[in-house]
Amino acid sequence: MARFMDVHSGFVGVTAAQLTEAHERDLAIEDEEGVHFERAWLDPESGKVFCLSTGPSKEAVQRIHERAGHPATEVYEIPVEV
Amino acid sequence: MARFMDVHSGFVGVTAAQLTEAHERDLAIEDEEGVHFERAWLDPESGKVFCLSTGPSKEAVQRIHERAGHPATEVYEIPVEV
Repeated sequence: MARFMDVHSGFVGVTAAQLTEAHERDLAIEDEEGVHFERAWLDPESGKVFCLSTGPSKEAVQRIHERAGHPATEVYEIPVEV
Repeated sequence: MARFMDVHSGFVGVTAAQLTEAHERDLAIEDEEGVHFERAWLDPESGKVFCLSTGPSKEAVQRIHERAGHPATEVYEIPVEV
């Protein structure tokens, strides 16, 4: 199992409730790809969202985000953490 | 106190020991700007680093990174977290 950070763009003006709703759409189906989305952070001014997850591959992470309706613009595997 | 995610580029091939050393350079001086760097994640393949911090402003976060020798390419305030 590896760890990933993915980045979304275009979430300008999104509220905490809307982010929670989007995150819950991921959580509802993440088991189907062996992914778990741990946390997400939003800057509603720039519209950037950062999601921290674990899973088998970048592609699995992206498939969940795509099926939940919000594909990531970038997905990075992050094997090193301090 | 606000929360921030910043992004660095150019850390291709960097090791865990080197990331720890860079992070410790931030920790050594962060108090001078009222900043605290909580965690950092590295993708040594793309060279991206993501740092999660708290502090008074984006500028304060960037000043610590600059003085530590590794300015961020982007700094985002992230008031919303799930």
